[in-house]
Amino acid sequence: MKTAFATAIGASSQQYMVQRWKNGELTTTTDQLAEEVPVALVYNGVSHVVMLASPQDLEDFALGFSITEGILRDKSELYGIEVQLQENGIEVHLDIASERFFLLKERKRNMAGRTGCGLCGAESLTQVFHLPAVSNISQHSKISMRSVFKAHDSIRAKQALQQLTGATHACAWGNAAGEIEYVREDVGRHNALDKLIGVLCKEGIKGGFILTSSRASYEMVQKVAMVGFDLLAAISAPTGLAVRIAEEYQITLLGFVRDQQYVAYSHANRMTE
Amino acid sequence: MKTAFATAIGASSQQYMVQRWKNGELTTTTDQLAEEVPVALVYNGVSHVVMLASPQDLEDFALGFSITEGILRDKSELYGIEVQLQENGIEVHLDIASERFFLLKERKRNMAGRTGCGLCGAESLTQVFHLPAVSNISQHSKISMRSVFKAHDSIRAKQALQQLTGATHACAWGNAAGEIEYVREDVGRHNALDKLIGVLCKEGIKGGFILTSSRASYEMVQKVAMVGFDLLAAISAPTGLAVRIAEEYQITLLGFVRDQQYVAYSHANRMTE
Repeated sequence: MKTAFATAIGASSQQYMVQRWKNGELTTTTDQLAEEVPVALVYNGVSHVVMLASPQDLEDFALGFSITEGILRDKSELYGIEVQLQENGIEVHLDIASERFFLLKERKRNMAGRTGCGLCGAESLTQVFHLPAVSNISQHSKISMRSVFKAHDSIRAKQALQQLTGATHACAWGNAAGEIEYVREDVGRHNALDKLIGVLCKEGIKGGFILTSSRASYEMVQKVAMVGFDLLAAISAPTGLAVRIAEEYQITLLGFVRDQQYVAYSHANRMTE
Repeated sequence: MKTAFATAIGASSQQYMVQRWKNGELTTTTDQLAEEVPVALVYNGVSHVVMLASPQDLEDFALGFSITEGILRDKSELYGIEVQLQENGIEVHLDIASERFFLLKERKRNMAGRTGCGLCGAESLTQVFHLPAVSNISQHSKISMRSVFKAHDSIRAKQALQQLTGATHACAWGNAAGEIEYVREDVGRHNALDKLIGVLCKEGIKGGFILTSSRASYEMVQKVAMVGFDLLAAISAPTGLAVRIAEEYQITLLGFVRDQQYVAYSHANRMTE
């Protein structure tokens, strides 16, 4: 299989020959497809995890993932980062504070024998939903619905990979005026959010709101809470669990955001006209 | 958080109070949301993994997951199965052949120290893509595109949970005539496919094709290959990696299936009018 994978390393999308059936006719043509590439996160020389991701903005991804997974507390604990293309994937080497690396090794030792999947590392119900205490939720300033609608109006034009491939998610950060300042894309919506969180943490961005082009799962609300943002606006539906976690964390969760429309699932009182 | 989760156990969707902004008016109303519930798979009394899933068709899910993860080779190795509601999730107890349980324990021992996430258990690039040898791909009979279109036309009406919540994926099996005989739904598309594969393996179904309401990732192609089906039709886009794996496994991968339209990404020659 090596050759099949080797073709894609480093490119977020590639052209494929396809046969298209349309209007009763078969044509041979090309199609630009999003790539999912194995990305290994390597902390202080030790490989920790492999994720499938769109191979762009991987430094943001590595920082965001490290923070939302609780491996790092903030960017000051990341001393250096390097992306290395390998034959069968991409390695992101992170040089982190030795105290945090020690804790990561301890965590791995405690996980010994698990084959966790789905919920990271959890193998029995009692290990699920030990939610981290989140103390840095911002001051719950009001947000104008006009700002959310404005961001929604402009996100599509900023989804470059989606426009090429029709197969990727985006997460964006909008300021109080609804201007989108950061957008990150990925084949996986959780990765897109980790990439966005990575760049927001790197730049020290606070306030504003996060907009996702996809559905809102409980994991997405949890990631948003971990870094102290308090409004997550989703273009599609949330799950019930996402709503209950948002309620708990005092996050305003909007779904079905459209032109001049939204549904507020939690802490709706922060929205103003 | 316990109370927040306890409300949902067992229900695939629940009603929530929401505030809806539409046509310049704010109304308080209710919305039916899909639930994601922690589901622990317990083999011979030992909890192995927790997944978030829609809590329906969990026996199918457990069998399908066990087979596509290589824990079981077929249904004959599953002696009994029982779904138990717990306070904080659902446990599915599987009574499996002692030989397979022994191999599962060995696998866990070999995984000691890993905190795998994303790609099940893989923590470095060299562990990725040791694809299982798949020997039971069927005889590559031709399939009429009319059958695929017919299945596409009827899948929506069979997505009961999606119609309630707008937030779930479906996978369906269609016979050579394009009649959908099995549909399974879940908040996660990989879970929906595992549920479908579970019921197909239970019933001993061969041939026909699999239709998914979502995108096609490499993992979905791999699951389809694991159980010997050779046509996966997706309503949305595939990834490049999915196409390359489908090419390798001699699976016909269709994307953007619509009324009288499709794009064939691999082994297009199996399609007939």
